[in-house]
Amino acid sequence: MILFEDIQRYIDKLNYLSKVEDEEILQHMENYAQKVGFPIVGRSVGRFLYLITKLKNPKLIVEVGSGYGYSAYWFAKALSSGKVVLTDYSQDNLEMAKDFLSGAGLIDKVELRLGNGVEIAKEYKNIDILFFDHEKAKYLDSILILKDNLSSGGLVIADNTLWHGKVLEEDVDKQTRKIKEFNEYMFSSQEFFTTLIPLRDGLLVAIKV
Amino acid sequence: MILFEDIQRYIDKLNYLSKVEDEEILQHMENYAQKVGFPIVGRSVGRFLYLITKLKNPKLIVEVGSGYGYSAYWFAKALSSGKVVLTDYSQDNLEMAKDFLSGAGLIDKVELRLGNGVEIAKEYKNIDILFFDHEKAKYLDSILILKDNLSSGGLVIADNTLWHGKVLEEDVDKQTRKIKEFNEYMFSSQEFFTTLIPLRDGLLVAIKV
Repeated sequence: MILFEDIQRYIDKLNYLSKVEDEEILQHMENYAQKVGFPIVGRSVGRFLYLITKLKNPKLIVEVGSGYGYSAYWFAKALSSGKVVLTDYSQDNLEMAKDFLSGAGLIDKVELRLGNGVEIAKEYKNIDILFFDHEKAKYLDSILILKDNLSSGGLVIADNTLWHGKVLEEDVDKQTRKIKEFNEYMFSSQEFFTTLIPLRDGLLVAIKV
Repeated sequence: MILFEDIQRYIDKLNYLSKVEDEEILQHMENYAQKVGFPIVGRSVGRFLYLITKLKNPKLIVEVGSGYGYSAYWFAKALSSGKVVLTDYSQDNLEMAKDFLSGAGLIDKVELRLGNGVEIAKEYKNIDILFFDHEKAKYLDSILILKDNLSSGGLVIADNTLWHGKVLEEDVDKQTRKIKEFNEYMFSSQEFFTTLIPLRDGLLVAIKV
């Protein structure tokens, strides 16, 4: 457990006071996640990604692990120019993302790429925001591979870095151990200034120094 | 209660893995807070303010309620140019702030102003970051008075907006009721895009649309 449940509920209630375009599309995406148990980042994190993107004004966002495009919606919605590259192993997910993002009028701001997100990300230089939401055990290897592809002042945003609170335990499974190592690497590194935001399942946000 | 205590401790442990200049000065400020029970924002929020400031690259930050300068340290440290205006009712607090910020080599980036923070803030136009940490019952009135003094795309950051979890209660004291009204106003307003970050006692972060 991370946040007390009532606190999450209070924040959610506030989130829905905010009138946003595409409310219908968002609710469709959120209801689908609930129905099939798909781990989307949810409204609080989505809105936070939107705010960060507005501040950063990036030209290039690359997502490693996009699912059916829920986080990409918030990134793309906040872009003034530039694009979001979505990656996923599942053609079905990417087809759904295409439908959702077309419905929201955002399809011209995205590229949809099928395959290994880290390999695809390697093709891009000067990534302004690199978003991690793929296999948790691979976060550390992925940042070591991709950090030189970030622009100066670029951001790394990684979801699930509190991993349902399992990071607190001593005797942990491989996935949890690798997330802990990733967090420790990011905070210790002189190349990044790192914060961990306890929204939902924990969002690590780091800026390349 | 907001965050589970162990989660806060985990994030704190990570924070201290990060080597920062001025570690001695920061610990001095933090130890003093603990000794006398002064409500500073703490390391997690401080680091978050630093990150947001790096992204925003503001020219003018105005704090309504600065205490002895702990939040101002993080704002000023992140500035490339521009300044932070500190306000407080207490001459003693401002003297301490002056000492701390001089020690960190940041005194040229700050203005120290004694008096009513809202009245002082009214003197400034094009505020890029407006930070609220004054009497909680006054947040709503303060934003109504000051919102036109924000630059377009300017940020409002308000501390204590989860108010030890008291915002969850139905039958509340005046202070809590006013915080709830502030939160609801900020999320409902079409002039702001608002998020609430559950760091420590709750940090509302809103961007002027």
